[in-house]
Amino acid sequence: MRNFNFFQRFSRTFRDYDSQFKLVLLCTTVSGGGLLAYGEAVATSEAAVPEKKKVLVLGTGWAGTSFLRNLNDPRYEVHVVSPRNYFAFTPLLPSVTCGTVEARSIVEPVRNIFRKKHVDSRFSEAECIKIDAVNRKVYCRSNINNNSNEKQDFVVDYDYLIIAVGAQVNTFNTPGVTEHCHFLKEVEDAQKIRRTVIDCFERASLPSVSDEEKKRILHFAIVGGGPTGVEFAAALHDFVSEDLVKLYPGVKDLVKITLLEAGGHILSMFDKRITAFAEDKFQRDGIDVKTGSMVVKVSDREISTKEMKNGGEITSIPYGMAVWSTGIGTRPFIKDFMTQIGQINRRAVATDEWLRVEGTNNVYALGDCATINQRKVMEDIAAIFKKTDKDNSGTLTLKEFQEVMDDICERYPQVELYLKNKHMHGIADLLKESKGDVAKESIELNIEELKTALINVDSEMKFLPATAQVASQQGAYLAKCFNRMEECEKNPEGPIRFREEGRHRFKPFRYKHLGQFAPLGGEQTAAQLPGDWVSIGHSSQWLWYSVYASKQVSWRTRALVVSDWMRRFIFGRDSSQI
Amino acid sequence: MRNFNFFQRFSRTFRDYDSQFKLVLLCTTVSGGGLLAYGEAVATSEAAVPEKKKVLVLGTGWAGTSFLRNLNDPRYEVHVVSPRNYFAFTPLLPSVTCGTVEARSIVEPVRNIFRKKHVDSRFSEAECIKIDAVNRKVYCRSNINNNSNEKQDFVVDYDYLIIAVGAQVNTFNTPGVTEHCHFLKEVEDAQKIRRTVIDCFERASLPSVSDEEKKRILHFAIVGGGPTGVEFAAALHDFVSEDLVKLYPGVKDLVKITLLEAGGHILSMFDKRITAFAEDKFQRDGIDVKTGSMVVKVSDREISTKEMKNGGEITSIPYGMAVWSTGIGTRPFIKDFMTQIGQINRRAVATDEWLRVEGTNNVYALGDCATINQRKVMEDIAAIFKKTDKDNSGTLTLKEFQEVMDDICERYPQVELYLKNKHMHGIADLLKESKGDVAKESIELNIEELKTALINVDSEMKFLPATAQVASQQGAYLAKCFNRMEECEKNPEGPIRFREEGRHRFKPFRYKHLGQFAPLGGEQTAAQLPGDWVSIGHSSQWLWYSVYASKQVSWRTRALVVSDWMRRFIFGRDSSQI
Repeated sequence: MRNFNFFQRFSRTFRDYDSQFKLVLLCTTVSGGGLLAYGEAVATSEAAVPEKKKVLVLGTGWAGTSFLRNLNDPRYEVHVVSPRNYFAFTPLLPSVTCGTVEARSIVEPVRNIFRKKHVDSRFSEAECIKIDAVNRKVYCRSNINNNSNEKQDFVVDYDYLIIAVGAQVNTFNTPGVTEHCHFLKEVEDAQKIRRTVIDCFERASLPSVSDEEKKRILHFAIVGGGPTGVEFAAALHDFVSEDLVKLYPGVKDLVKITLLEAGGHILSMFDKRITAFAEDKFQRDGIDVKTGSMVVKVSDREISTKEMKNGGEITSIPYGMAVWSTGIGTRPFIKDFMTQIGQINRRAVATDEWLRVEGTNNVYALGDCATINQRKVMEDIAAIFKKTDKDNSGTLTLKEFQEVMDDICERYPQVELYLKNKHMHGIADLLKESKGDVAKESIELNIEELKTALINVDSEMKFLPATAQVASQQGAYLAKCFNRMEECEKNPEGPIRFREEGRHRFKPFRYKHLGQFAPLGGEQTAAQLPGDWVSIGHSSQWLWYSVYASKQVSWRTRALVVSDWMRRFIFGRDSSQI
Repeated sequence: MRNFNFFQRFSRTFRDYDSQFKLVLLCTTVSGGGLLAYGEAVATSEAAVPEKKKVLVLGTGWAGTSFLRNLNDPRYEVHVVSPRNYFAFTPLLPSVTCGTVEARSIVEPVRNIFRKKHVDSRFSEAECIKIDAVNRKVYCRSNINNNSNEKQDFVVDYDYLIIAVGAQVNTFNTPGVTEHCHFLKEVEDAQKIRRTVIDCFERASLPSVSDEEKKRILHFAIVGGGPTGVEFAAALHDFVSEDLVKLYPGVKDLVKITLLEAGGHILSMFDKRITAFAEDKFQRDGIDVKTGSMVVKVSDREISTKEMKNGGEITSIPYGMAVWSTGIGTRPFIKDFMTQIGQINRRAVATDEWLRVEGTNNVYALGDCATINQRKVMEDIAAIFKKTDKDNSGTLTLKEFQEVMDDICERYPQVELYLKNKHMHGIADLLKESKGDVAKESIELNIEELKTALINVDSEMKFLPATAQVASQQGAYLAKCFNRMEECEKNPEGPIRFREEGRHRFKPFRYKHLGQFAPLGGEQTAAQLPGDWVSIGHSSQWLWYSVYASKQVSWRTRALVVSDWMRRFIFGRDSSQI
C-alpha cells in the first residue's frame, strides 16, 4: 500500500508542470535497441502586467502552434480559435494512413501547449467564418456535435490578429473529386484512408464478388506525384506487401497501386537523382507510375485521365480507392477577407516581409494561407539611390554603397542570392559588371547605371514552398517579434527604411531551408539537404527517424511515435477495421 | 547498412509465424518498474484430410473467438461471418472511453487469430440477416462502405452452425434513448463517448455560453448501476479530476457526474460489502448516485426519471451527455430465427447443456445470445428411477444410487450445488432427509420417496450471467468438443442418458466462475473472487492490471495495453478531439 502511494504521488509530481525543473528519463529497450531521452524545461518568470494586448490566433497548425510555443511575453492575452483542439504533426500523416504510426501519437492538445507557458491563454474550438479588419472583430462558429445540432456563433475582438489557418485541398474543379476521392490533409483523412484500405480488402474477400470486380476494388489510385502522394504510395505498398498479403492470401495477387502525375516526373521539386531513383524503385516495387496523366473526371468506379503523351487521349481506369493529393487552395473566408482588403485574384494572403497583411493594421498572416510579397529592388531603386548617396553628389561611390550594403541585403534578400548564384564576392563585382573593366576603387555610378547593375537581381525572388518547415519558422519568427515588440520599438534592429526615415523595428523574416525528405518505402528514404546534398537509401531512413522523432512537439508524442515504430517493427501493422 | 539489413531480416523472422518456436522478449523499464513477458507458441501438426466439414461461425466476440482459437482439428473448414473483422477485449471498453487505453490496443484482427492455426479458415465481413436451419443456409449482407454504397448479399451453407453474435443494447423501449444516448457495447461506442466528453468540455468553454448552459453541458448522466455503468462513471471521474481540470480550469467546478439506477443499490450482483464501499467512495468523489430512479424518457437536453422513493414522481434533469448501460436485448435476426424454430417469447436462444440449439440439428449457440436450458431433475425423475433401479425391484438401495450418482451430478449440476449449499456430504444425507432417522445402509426408496428427496434440488438452477467469462468458456468448451467429435462418437465420455440408451458423447458444459472485478477509480478496484472472497482497494487494482494483461489474446495487444497504462501514468490521458 505504501509502495503504491509513493507511485501515485510520484505520478502526480511527474505530471505537474509547475515544477521548475523537469527530468524525463525514458529508457526503453527492445531487442538491443535503445532510446534515451532527456528533457529540461526552463521556467519563465511571471510578472504582473496592468493592461494586456489581445492577440487572436486563428488556427492550430504548424504556424499557429509554433507562434504559441514561442510567445513568452505575459503582457499579451492570447485567444486561439481553431476547429481542431490539437496540433497534428502532419509530416507523419502518410504513416498514419497505414497504421505505421497511430493518429493519436502525432497529435498534442493545444491546451497542453498553453499550460506550460506563462502567457494568459484561452482556446475556443470553432471555425472562423468572417474577419472584420476595420472593426477588429472576428466572427466564429462552433460546429461541435451535440444532441440538438445547434451551432454556437460568437464574435471575438482583437488588438493583433494572427491568421494561420492553412490551406484546403484544391480539386481544380475536377468533377467528382469531392464526392469520390480521399484527401490527406487532416488527421481524420488519414484515419478514413486507413479504414478504406481495409474495407477494400474485406470487400474483395467476400464470396459473392467476381474476379474482375476484385481487381477493381483492389486498385488504389493516387493522384499527384508530389511528396505526399509518393510517400503515401510507398507506405501503402509496404502495408500491403509486409502485412496484408499474409492476412488476405486469396486476393494478394490482385492488388495494384497506380500513381498519376500530370507533369513529366514525380517529385519534380526534388533533385533529378532523387526523381530517377524514386521512379526506378517504384517500377521494381510494381507501383505503376503514370506521368503526363491528368485526371479530368472521377466517377464512383472510374477515373478518367487525359494522356498528355498520347495527344490528350481520354482513358478510363476502374479503381477501388482514390487519394487526391495535388496542390492547395484558399479557404472561402480567407477569399472573402482578401476581397475585403483589396487583394483580389491571389492564391494566398499577401504579406510584407514582416508577415503583416498588406492593406491592414495589426493583422498578420503566416503558413500555407499566406505568401510574402517580397519588395522588388527596382520598385525602390530611386529611394535606394537617394539613401545611399549621402553627399547628394548624384553619383554613388563604392564606399557609399558598401556602407548600406548590409541593409540592402537584409531588406532585399534577392541581392544576396543573386551575388551567390553569380559567384560574386561582393557588391564591387556586381557594380563592376555594369561599369565594365575599371578599377574597383574608382567605381562611381549614376542612377541609370545602378539600375543596369541591379536589373536582373529581382529575378532571384522566390515564393516560399507551402511546407511545415516554412510555417513553423514563420510562427517562431513572429512570436519573437511579439516578445520584443516594446524593446524594438525603442531600439529598432531592422534594416534602414529606404522610402521613409529611420529603421524597421525588426529584421524581416528569412527562411532557412533545412532540407526535405521523401520516404520511398522499404525502409529507404531520399533526403535533399541544404547545399544540394542528396542522400538516398537506408541511412537516410534512419536520419528520417531521428529528425522526425526530435521534431515532435512534446515528450508524450515523441515517446508514442518511437514506440509506434518499435511496435510496427515487432508486431507489424494492425488491420482491424476501426 | 549491414547492421540495418540484420535488423530488417530479424524483423521478418520475428513476425514469421510459421516458425516452430517463438520467443518474445519485451523488456520495458520505466522509472524502475519493469515488465518481463515471455511467450511460447507450440506448433500444431497438419495432416491431409480428404473431406472437410463446413463450420460456419457467426460473430467474432468472446464466444466466437474463443471457439476459433481452440479449434485444432484440420478436418473442419471454418467460415467466419461477422460485421467486425476483429476481436475486441470488451472489459477494457470503459478504459477506452477516457483514453486510459487506446481503442486499437484492445482489438486483434480475426485473420491474425486464424493465421496461427492449421485449420482451413476464411472470414467475411458481413452481417447475418437470416438463418435457414432447414436448408442449412445463412443469408448474409455486407455493409462495407464504398463509393457507390452498394450492399453485397450472399448465402453460406454449413454442416455445423455456431451462433455467437452476442446481444444488442436493450432500451426497454424508453422514448428518446436510441436518438440521444450513448451506448457502451462496441469499440466505436467507446470512441464516440471519448470524443463527446471532450466535445462537452470544448462546448462549455466557448465564450458565448451562459453559466447555466455550461452546467447542463458538463452534466454527465449514466443510466444503469451495473458493472459497466459504475466502471465508466469511475473512469470519467478520474479523467476529469486527473487530466481535464488542468486543461479546462475555467469550467472545472461545473462538472457533475450522475449515476442513475432503477434498483435499490448499484452493483447489486456483487457482495454487499462491495456495493457499500462503491456507494461510499462515489459519494466522497462527488459522483451523485441516484438509486430508485428509473429513466422514463430522454429528450435532447433532459432526462426524465420516475423516483421510486418519492412515490413515482417524475423529475427532469438537464444533461450534456448520457450513457445508457442497462441490460441486453436480442438481435432482430435472432428473434426471427427463434420464431422459426418455435422458441417464442424468450430473451435468448435456448440450448441444451451441450450448447446445441433446441429444436435444430447441428446448430450451436453460445455467449450472450444464448441461454442454457438446464434439464430439471423432476422432469426426468421416472427415467432416473428406472435407470438406477438395476434389479427392477421397484425400490432403490443406497448402493444402486451411489453407482449412478456421478452421472446424475454431471447431468444435473443442481444436485451437487444443492448438496453443497445444504452442507451435505453425499447422497446418503439427502436420502436420509426424506426417510428420516434410519441407518444409512438400510435406506431404500420407492419413486415417491425419491421425488420427495429431490423436490427442492431444481431450485438451485441458475442462469449463467451474460459475461465475457461465460462466453469465452463456452467457446473453448465447444471447440474441444469439435476437436474430439469423432473420437467421442466411438468412446462417449459423457454421463449416462437417462431417457435413452448409452452415454452422451461429451460431458455437458460446466461454467467455472473465476471471479469478477469492479474498478471504482482512483486506482482502487473491488474484486469478488470464488468462494465469496472479497478484496477492495489498491491491491485489487494491481490484481486487475495483472489479470487483464494476462488475458489479452495476443502479445501485440498485451504489449500495447501495458504500454498504454504506462503512458497514462507518465503523461496522463490525451484530450485531442480525434
